[in-house]
Amino acid sequence: MNWRPQMERALALAALGAGTTSPNPMVGALVLDQDGQLVGEGYHCRAGEPHAEVMALAQAAGRARGGTLVVTLEPCCHQGRTPPCCDAVLAAGVARVVVAMADPDPRVAGGGIARLRAAGLEVVVGVAELEAARLNQAFVHRVRSGRPWGLLKWAMSLDGRTALPNDESQWISGPLARQWVHRLRGRCDAVIVGGGTLRADDPLLTSRGARTPEPLRVVLSCSLDLPVAAQIFQSEGVAATLVAHGPEASRAAQERLDRLGIERLQLPQCTPLGLLEGLAGRGCNQVLWECGPTLAAAAVRQGCVQQVAAVIAPTLLGGEPARTPLGRLDLTRISEAPRLISQGWHPLGPDLLWLHALGPASDP
Amino acid sequence: MNWRPQMERALALAALGAGTTSPNPMVGALVLDQDGQLVGEGYHCRAGEPHAEVMALAQAAGRARGGTLVVTLEPCCHQGRTPPCCDAVLAAGVARVVVAMADPDPRVAGGGIARLRAAGLEVVVGVAELEAARLNQAFVHRVRSGRPWGLLKWAMSLDGRTALPNDESQWISGPLARQWVHRLRGRCDAVIVGGGTLRADDPLLTSRGARTPEPLRVVLSCSLDLPVAAQIFQSEGVAATLVAHGPEASRAAQERLDRLGIERLQLPQCTPLGLLEGLAGRGCNQVLWECGPTLAAAAVRQGCVQQVAAVIAPTLLGGEPARTPLGRLDLTRISEAPRLISQGWHPLGPDLLWLHALGPASDP
Repeated sequence: MNWRPQMERALALAALGAGTTSPNPMVGALVLDQDGQLVGEGYHCRAGEPHAEVMALAQAAGRARGGTLVVTLEPCCHQGRTPPCCDAVLAAGVARVVVAMADPDPRVAGGGIARLRAAGLEVVVGVAELEAARLNQAFVHRVRSGRPWGLLKWAMSLDGRTALPNDESQWISGPLARQWVHRLRGRCDAVIVGGGTLRADDPLLTSRGARTPEPLRVVLSCSLDLPVAAQIFQSEGVAATLVAHGPEASRAAQERLDRLGIERLQLPQCTPLGLLEGLAGRGCNQVLWECGPTLAAAAVRQGCVQQVAAVIAPTLLGGEPARTPLGRLDLTRISEAPRLISQGWHPLGPDLLWLHALGPASDP
Repeated sequence: MNWRPQMERALALAALGAGTTSPNPMVGALVLDQDGQLVGEGYHCRAGEPHAEVMALAQAAGRARGGTLVVTLEPCCHQGRTPPCCDAVLAAGVARVVVAMADPDPRVAGGGIARLRAAGLEVVVGVAELEAARLNQAFVHRVRSGRPWGLLKWAMSLDGRTALPNDESQWISGPLARQWVHRLRGRCDAVIVGGGTLRADDPLLTSRGARTPEPLRVVLSCSLDLPVAAQIFQSEGVAATLVAHGPEASRAAQERLDRLGIERLQLPQCTPLGLLEGLAGRGCNQVLWECGPTLAAAAVRQGCVQQVAAVIAPTLLGGEPARTPLGRLDLTRISEAPRLISQGWHPLGPDLLWLHALGPASDP
């Protein structure tokens, strides 16, 4: 029997939980009665709330008996914030369970499948396994490595600049790109910047409502030399903020934050790796690095970045450092930068060619 | 009567001359007899050789009489290296001439159209005018501005680097991108570098046979501090080379080049603008800037760049200058750079988002 169509539906249900299930994975499930009719559907929405299997079986009620449960991840067999799903599956009396992938969580790791088989159920494993693993790549990465999946995002000009020599950086990319960044934040559990970005850009770092609650805003600062008037410290009602630092931060600086009621996390080491281990402990599956070049490079060097999202804006910013594509352009404002008009992009083997015509500067 | 299909054919004929007609434009022509049957085709292949109209009329022979000439550019009315085309058109006895666009060359500039009309021919002007102007954008730009059309090309990593901090730059882009650059050179009359690129990269700067003759290789050097062992000076049989400099170059340095038989062009000023005016005088319609950041930025500042071709390679090179996307990555070789796996690109308003997964370095 080909269970792929049913599993694809279950995966679509699972994806409805995107952004809110951490530290849990996204899971979707559906129940067919013994005649193969769809009688229940469910997905995991939020940690502490019912798992997908329980939701789908509850909807199916008595019609699950002798039927089939299709679920995107192995049912759990341990007591967590909710009871083990295997209990519910056995209680519902289904004859068959179809699973996309085993749960990499060491508390499950095949134990759920073994328990169902021991109880006499037919268990099919591996249907649309690749798609299921891709959907939960962040969860799988966190369970296996002990660190959340890291996504590094930046916006730059076509000549690889993220700011003018005078540090002006708002706005290199356009409104659609900025909206996309808000949605991206909505799929992450935390958004990370360094103290430098906080001082230079004073970002708000929210998803503008794309995720409820908003992702945790994290500042990694070894010095704790932070501007307390920064937006992220003045908008605690909008989103939570955490300042992470190492043991070298001065007692005085720590106390200054404590007095202001700003939450601190002291790490064994003030490094990207130390931070991610701390954030894994707080239930983060996926984090977004929105930091400056020094912290971003450290994150890449320490294996804290699994994905890069580069927004390349059709403009040229120039600057003195000699081995980037352009030298001095004598600009003092982003709006003075030459506008490029896209003439299409083309893959050239692994490379991307993007052709542009050069238009006049927008503010002559 | 809709002449667009015939004009599109004539434009396709014209494009066969791409790269070799300078300082002339690309021109294509076809002749229909008085019953509308195609009886002749031609295109301009090389300066000094027959113009498209003459070629097409010759092929049509007597059958042109009473027919129609369709031509992508106004027939010339002045004696150049070949006789005026208007003479040939009138001699052939066609009743109608369909023209895509007037010739911006001040020696023609509507004079050809006026002469044909004065002789009693029906002249239709403006069929597929936009496409014709685009095809000859370089020629039109050169005739109007006195300077060749400038195309600036670079290859960079996704983080906007064209070399490692230790100057290694070969090869950031892949073989298909490098082949594309050879074909691009084949559509240009000259390829320009500065002395720094010559000293750092020692490029050959040919089209690898895509154009015959090869485009002129030009070095713009104010100091004339050039390595005479460079490939471009050791391969005169493959392609011609020209060294351009300003009045400030020392007499000794000039004489050193003269003794080696290297052609020099002394400019009133050692600037991109001065160089382009010199190259316009040598019949260049389109030039390719393949220079380093300082000269490239000067060319942009002086309006010497009309088009930018950025090849963005899926890799990260890092470096210290703080306001490019990444800081230090501790790389000493391009092959050590992290490999990015494209996950697709998406337009976001005018911006381009390119998503990547981060793979292992290719030489671990």
